[in-house]
Amino acid sequence: MLVKRSITTSRRNEFIDITSLVREAIYESALVDGVAIVFCPHTTAAITINENADPGVTADILQKLSSLVPLRDGYSHAEGNSDAHVKSSLVGASETVIIEQGTLVLGVWQSIYFCEFDGPRSRNVYIQTLAA
Amino acid sequence: MLVKRSITTSRRNEFIDITSLVREAIYESALVDGVAIVFCPHTTAAITINENADPGVTADILQKLSSLVPLRDGYSHAEGNSDAHVKSSLVGASETVIIEQGTLVLGVWQSIYFCEFDGPRSRNVYIQTLAA
Amino acid sequence: MLVKRSITTSRRNEFIDITSLVREAIYESALVDGVAIVFCPHTTAAITINENADPGVTADILQKLSSLVPLRDGYSHAEGNSDAHVKSSLVGASETVIIEQGTLVLGVWQSIYFCEFDGPRSRNVYIQTLAA
Repeated sequence: MLVKRSITTSRRNEFIDITSLVREAIYESALVDGVAIVFCPHTTAAITINENADPGVTADILQKLSSLVPLRDGYSHAEGNSDAHVKSSLVGASETVIIEQGTLVLGVWQSIYFCEFDGPRSRNVYIQTLAA
Repeated sequence: MLVKRSITTSRRNEFIDITSLVREAIYESALVDGVAIVFCPHTTAAITINENADPGVTADILQKLSSLVPLRDGYSHAEGNSDAHVKSSLVGASETVIIEQGTLVLGVWQSIYFCEFDGPRSRNVYIQTLAA
Repeated sequence: MLVKRSITTSRRNEFIDITSLVREAIYESALVDGVAIVFCPHTTAAITINENADPGVTADILQKLSSLVPLRDGYSHAEGNSDAHVKSSLVGASETVIIEQGTLVLGVWQSIYFCEFDGPRSRNVYIQTLAA
């Protein structure tokens, strides 16, 4: 079952924990065993999985991405957001997660993040569930 | 249904828009709702999703990847294409995209790209469709 | 069918070829056509696909990742392993691979790697198979 949700970001670079949103989609789908594909339909954002305990971790990831791919770097794209496009391809447009007995299977420290690289904006997330 | 297609690249580093090829595979599969896995069976190439409007965007991504992972950088691999292998793991070997009512679901600016990092060559792309 | 396996890593940064482990899971699942999702439930490790012929390739990838994301770099996360978290999001938590006629479909040079970035440790890998 395909679930479409909207989220609002509040900074140019930001990780938003969407794990509960994915859990809700799995619950709505009534799927017992399978996977969920969490897809970002934007080219200046991404989906990743990383630690949810210390907010310093996601801050460090955002900081390191911005040092590797600076806002200004002699890009040719006139809109001025090439850094966000590069980050999107480095982090990736989707994550596939496992569902077991109706439950999202993640490691104890893992959360699913929507990665905003050109906000703040209104954004969408699509979640497709597939039975095993 | 598994669809295998060949493409030809024309430069060492190049993004080739394969969205229409993926749409054809979905059409052939007659799948209504599900996903398509777009897989690159090469270790010096990758698959990504990014902007299709301004060709400056993909040029900027290729340029930034080559500045982060230069052609010559004291690599140990004797073939001289370690940069391409690193880029392949950074960008990733596949993308999973959603199919709704027989139609590929992408954001308005998104295309699916075959990323050549060690061309020009003859390359393959595999597309597996799965029903939801 | 969901298969869970444990592996042991022996260095802080290390690629471990888990292709045979994935092949065993596919065999156990008795799946004919579909995909396998190879998922890493850890936030300081990842899954990638790259060359299996010359070990210099994976050594070069590890070396380049460590030069882009050094162990010490003014990170805020107090545990001292932010480099591993960044690498995890750059490489990605999973790979999706195709199964055709009961056989894992990979390119001739491709292997599936568990990427340890904060070892040595005992780690887990989850493999979910889905029919096409």
